[in-house]
Amino acid sequence: MTPKVHTLSNGVRVVCDPLPGWQTTALSVVAGRGARFEDAGHSGWSHLLEHMVFKGAGGRSAKQIVEAIEAEGGHINAATGYERTSFQIRALKGGLDLGSAVIADLVLRPAMDAADLTREKQVVGQEIAEAADTPDDLVFELAQEAAFAGQPLGRPILGTPKSIGTATPETLSAWRAALYAPGTLVVSAAGAVDEEELLALAERDYGGAAGADLAAPEPAAFAGGTKTVAKKLEQANLVLLLPAVGVMDPDYFALRLLAEILGGGMASRLFQEAREVRGLAYAIDAYSETYADTGVLGVFAGCAAGDAVELAEVTANELKGLTEPVGAAELSRAKAQLKGAMFMGRESALARAEQAAGQVLLFGRTLDPVAVAEQIDAVTPAQLAALTVRILEPRKAAVAILGPKAALAAADRFERTLFG
Amino acid sequence: MTPKVHTLSNGVRVVCDPLPGWQTTALSVVAGRGARFEDAGHSGWSHLLEHMVFKGAGGRSAKQIVEAIEAEGGHINAATGYERTSFQIRALKGGLDLGSAVIADLVLRPAMDAADLTREKQVVGQEIAEAADTPDDLVFELAQEAAFAGQPLGRPILGTPKSIGTATPETLSAWRAALYAPGTLVVSAAGAVDEEELLALAERDYGGAAGADLAAPEPAAFAGGTKTVAKKLEQANLVLLLPAVGVMDPDYFALRLLAEILGGGMASRLFQEAREVRGLAYAIDAYSETYADTGVLGVFAGCAAGDAVELAEVTANELKGLTEPVGAAELSRAKAQLKGAMFMGRESALARAEQAAGQVLLFGRTLDPVAVAEQIDAVTPAQLAALTVRILEPRKAAVAILGPKAALAAADRFERTLFG
Repeated sequence: MTPKVHTLSNGVRVVCDPLPGWQTTALSVVAGRGARFEDAGHSGWSHLLEHMVFKGAGGRSAKQIVEAIEAEGGHINAATGYERTSFQIRALKGGLDLGSAVIADLVLRPAMDAADLTREKQVVGQEIAEAADTPDDLVFELAQEAAFAGQPLGRPILGTPKSIGTATPETLSAWRAALYAPGTLVVSAAGAVDEEELLALAERDYGGAAGADLAAPEPAAFAGGTKTVAKKLEQANLVLLLPAVGVMDPDYFALRLLAEILGGGMASRLFQEAREVRGLAYAIDAYSETYADTGVLGVFAGCAAGDAVELAEVTANELKGLTEPVGAAELSRAKAQLKGAMFMGRESALARAEQAAGQVLLFGRTLDPVAVAEQIDAVTPAQLAALTVRILEPRKAAVAILGPKAALAAADRFERTLFG
Repeated sequence: MTPKVHTLSNGVRVVCDPLPGWQTTALSVVAGRGARFEDAGHSGWSHLLEHMVFKGAGGRSAKQIVEAIEAEGGHINAATGYERTSFQIRALKGGLDLGSAVIADLVLRPAMDAADLTREKQVVGQEIAEAADTPDDLVFELAQEAAFAGQPLGRPILGTPKSIGTATPETLSAWRAALYAPGTLVVSAAGAVDEEELLALAERDYGGAAGADLAAPEPAAFAGGTKTVAKKLEQANLVLLLPAVGVMDPDYFALRLLAEILGGGMASRLFQEAREVRGLAYAIDAYSETYADTGVLGVFAGCAAGDAVELAEVTANELKGLTEPVGAAELSRAKAQLKGAMFMGRESALARAEQAAGQVLLFGRTLDPVAVAEQIDAVTPAQLAALTVRILEPRKAAVAILGPKAALAAADRFERTLFG
């Protein structure tokens, strides 16, 4: 049932999810490396590198790269995260031959022209400036910084103009060789593609990749603390984080369910209490963000400045309430939501390919959705209550608030309500 | 091949796109009405109404509505546009029985509680404030206002705190009866659902709807002009609009192709010239926005303040360049992109259901994707050049600029470069 993992002689792994009758297909080539592998002086280099490889590779110019893919009706994209860098093709049936070849050029043979690098630093600099202008982006960056101060996870994926400014074609090429080494590369396809075809393409395009893998990063430690920035905005933006568990933890699905119950949908406790009953927030959302070894339980809220303190108190009280066992109907709803999202994600060929690659990186195999659904179903109310206790026990929170001055006191109220 | 349209005795239309083997399904109930049907005093009422029906309907509280859907792993959502209001369910196989019943309650039997309305006006007020804080949202609102000054299309879909403030449960209920009258309702499903099942649900849930349809809105007239707002931002945000054609126009696909060639992807003229060659913009994008009788060709750009004037000049020159016939390879790429996007959209059950509903509203039938692909393929370079002439001929543009003062002169440069 579940796609099998094949390993090329150089360590590159290949996984295929053929979908009979589909007109479209998707390919993800994923390196299990990203911004978490950067020290402070190289902050943002993985993201800058991902931009730079599109400037020219394998003899194609920047324009020729995208023209090649787009001429067949496809799309090419890439994304850099803390633990993962992903290159993606969406294409019509038959488009993976070219797609795989082009991505291999990007990953293995970028041109790294010096003039392009100078220009691309400006482009990324503008992206950094744009993030600083967007309250939604900035408040998450501040929260990440508070949660993981002084560590790679605490630095923005984009880096800073200064940290990316020092990159040269030579040093960035060395970073490429380490970041995209074959040991963590996964070639994953889904949709109108068959396994034999994909294996042949992978061998042709990625079989020759060489290079030594980076060492695993330091384990992350949740620091906690408060970052407030007063800014004349109409709205206050709050992010409240608590230390939780990582993707490999036995409590991983319990964490996902906890976030769902707390604030994952319109029937969630926070949405109902903060937005529906009290009318405090326009946006309120709980979520989990997980890495290999660690994770956070987070709440994001946007509200009027004068409501921020009350909102923080409500959130703290709802968190404390989760140390009591949740009701059967509430848990059943959260489980149905998690399973529904998983099956709905499977409508998209690209999402299937990405998810399979992620599973291979974490577990060395793909997971059967039916087995995952069973794991979700096995979580008990007692397990959720125990996880909540585990999350609150270090008495640490990371709070970021961006907005009018009146809102900044919410940080203190959140911590005092939560930890007394 | 293409889903057939059924019409209930009260005028509600039903269309089903069954997909064998799918685990998921989607339902869209779409009214062919929205903010374009509002006069200035009622600006934002359609959107406020869409919010309000979720506060309670058919005997279910706000909480019970979402709990019912989420308990089965589904999602419920809604969106208000200028010409369309859509209620959407995504569900696992078997979830449409409940989904259709719940949406019918929202559309036909909302509670309209006075206290809820007071609270919901505050929530929408916060949404309006958030849009004002977000440069990306605000600049599009300004451009829309410049393009269609004094007309419904020129007012924000959200309305203003003042215009939504006058709504009462009674007046908003009257607006509901008119906006969601059966004559423009379409019930559209795709995925794990069969036609017989959907027809039975539609008859059960929407067969009793009654009420007279609203009159068609006044034809829109492109006004044009400049809206600049100086604001201390890191970035300048520009939207440049020109009068184009509507969805029913024979040049509709030519317009889509023109936007694609101008700035639709990384191989597009603007992306290459403004971003890749000159490094002027972080974000640059051309698009078409179309309504039943009219449309615009638009360019959005985010750039450093000092680059805005040059960027406006580059954009104007690229537009003028499109009066010359485009090359065969470039046109072929744009066609492949448009067709690729259409087939990729068909990976999503909800996108299929929404698209079918939209086609029924415009054309009274669903369109065969293969026939659409043929229409796209039939567009010639001469047709594109003629359409560009048609777009430039009124010598009218709508320009919105939001950002540092240095950027505001870009409006004048754009118009002078374009119209001499």
